[in-house]
Amino acid sequence: MSKTDFQPADDQFASRVQGSFARQGVMSFMGAKLGVIEPGYCEIHLPFKPELSQQHGFFHGGVIGMIADSAAGYAGYSLMASDAGVLTIEYKMNIVAPGDGELLITEGTVIKPGRTITVTRADVFAIKQGKRKLCATMLQTLAVRTGIPEFLG
Amino acid sequence: MSKTDFQPADDQFASRVQGSFARQGVMSFMGAKLGVIEPGYCEIHLPFKPELSQQHGFFHGGVIGMIADSAAGYAGYSLMASDAGVLTIEYKMNIVAPGDGELLITEGTVIKPGRTITVTRADVFAIKQGKRKLCATMLQTLAVRTGIPEFLG
Amino acid sequence: MSKTDFQPADDQFASRVQGSFARQGVMSFMGAKLGVIEPGYCEIHLPFKPELSQQHGFFHGGVIGMIADSAAGYAGYSLMASDAGVLTIEYKMNIVAPGDGELLITEGTVIKPGRTITVTRADVFAIKQGKRKLCATMLQTLAVRTGIPEFLG
Amino acid sequence: MSKTDFQPADDQFASRVQGSFARQGVMSFMGAKLGVIEPGYCEIHLPFKPELSQQHGFFHGGVIGMIADSAAGYAGYSLMASDAGVLTIEYKMNIVAPGDGELLITEGTVIKPGRTITVTRADVFAIKQGKRKLCATMLQTLAVRTGIPEFLG
Repeated sequence: MSKTDFQPADDQFASRVQGSFARQGVMSFMGAKLGVIEPGYCEIHLPFKPELSQQHGFFHGGVIGMIADSAAGYAGYSLMASDAGVLTIEYKMNIVAPGDGELLITEGTVIKPGRTITVTRADVFAIKQGKRKLCATMLQTLAVRTGIPEFLG
Repeated sequence: MSKTDFQPADDQFASRVQGSFARQGVMSFMGAKLGVIEPGYCEIHLPFKPELSQQHGFFHGGVIGMIADSAAGYAGYSLMASDAGVLTIEYKMNIVAPGDGELLITEGTVIKPGRTITVTRADVFAIKQGKRKLCATMLQTLAVRTGIPEFLG
Repeated sequence: MSKTDFQPADDQFASRVQGSFARQGVMSFMGAKLGVIEPGYCEIHLPFKPELSQQHGFFHGGVIGMIADSAAGYAGYSLMASDAGVLTIEYKMNIVAPGDGELLITEGTVIKPGRTITVTRADVFAIKQGKRKLCATMLQTLAVRTGIPEFLG
Repeated sequence: MSKTDFQPADDQFASRVQGSFARQGVMSFMGAKLGVIEPGYCEIHLPFKPELSQQHGFFHGGVIGMIADSAAGYAGYSLMASDAGVLTIEYKMNIVAPGDGELLITEGTVIKPGRTITVTRADVFAIKQGKRKLCATMLQTLAVRTGIPEFLG
């Protein structure tokens, strides 16, 4: 069963997301990986490494923001036509618990797709010894653009 | 002349900011450096490298968010007493132009310091061939905590 | 069945919400009414009147923001102890469709309750000829305070 | 001397702002008035009345949000061509002090005008016995639209 009711404009949406993600230098630098991709939905998984930490050994808040921005952006991008892309206009994120765990899973979901503006959200969960805990939630606004067939994180 | 009118609670504020920054693994991983530190004001400088890019070779939006969060957080932290610290509750950032340049300079400034809540802002500028252009602006809310004498990014 | 899993700290939570709401001059001025109140959940209903409009005869965006702020604030307040209250620190709202209808229904829900900070959300729906359409979504941060046993909108 | 360096696209910008403002039912309902209008800058003044209050007799946070949204929106609108208008996509506001005073003055300013997206800010000051105090600050994103030559609050 699908996680959303959205119909993709391009049935190659998953390979477009994968191709765009692979071209973002910062994602492999951090060690982020794509998870489930469905129309209007995208997961990013980020295993912990010390280079991603703040002083207490938790994931840095900026790192949490980065994968939340990307997961929500790719959720929006998954609904675009093959010649269109999305650009982050803005996002707002609340950190509700420390990023304490061996893995972060971010779930990006489209709230409202649009012709020129798409609104999305992301929830970030820290996985610690198999237990999953919400650590951040984000609201994001994307601009839809033709001629840049990518999500530009 | 000072950039703000704030009086620091602890005259060792600059060395506390430097020490905390040095303990954030992710800052050296990205290559970020502290710039000017004054009471209620903090700059972070980030030279470009391909690992920080999105597909078009610009700074990734998530990277912009990360240093904006940190510069604003350290601006808030600079006003804390020596036994207190700050934690990011939330932030909202607008990206107003691509992060296109050889250097990002982020200026974090305190808007309203408080006993339990401090509100800050950050402006991020891309420097390209010596020209400076606003690429993002952020509003941030920090929680003031005793017993965690750090900015926990 | 309850809409959330939260346990109220005070079993008089519903009458506290009703009392506080009744003391907010602006709610009766606008014609807003409380709907369902459960632990961590609060609805506000606002019938259309021309005084609440912008130029096209839709609900003004500021009016939408006002009842979203209040519904989310009362959701947070419903979980407080009898001697505590909440204050809005900040909120961020996306307007995803015009407020076009005879009634707005706002659903405020707690995302993460806390000892000093509570994070909430609200969704605003416009009801037009019986059809319900999302028109706005909000993320909100509340400060928990003892000695102000109210939600101060 | 002008408050900004922006050049208006339409030299009738001030009368367009005044006309649009006059058509917003909710502004006269609340008693809001336009102040200074310049290219990329707009003030709204709101005298206190009990109908605008929360329980402690201060301006309700939702009322503060409403005039901040409008002042920033009209700042953006002042730079539009005569056949274009703006729509609020989203805003985020921090309330930094209670709205305690006989008058609120909101200053809306354009941060970055654009062809399809304009980013603005607003600062809200409470005036009490002649003293001016910052009570809220907002970041806002507007969509530029042709065919709706108004700011649709």
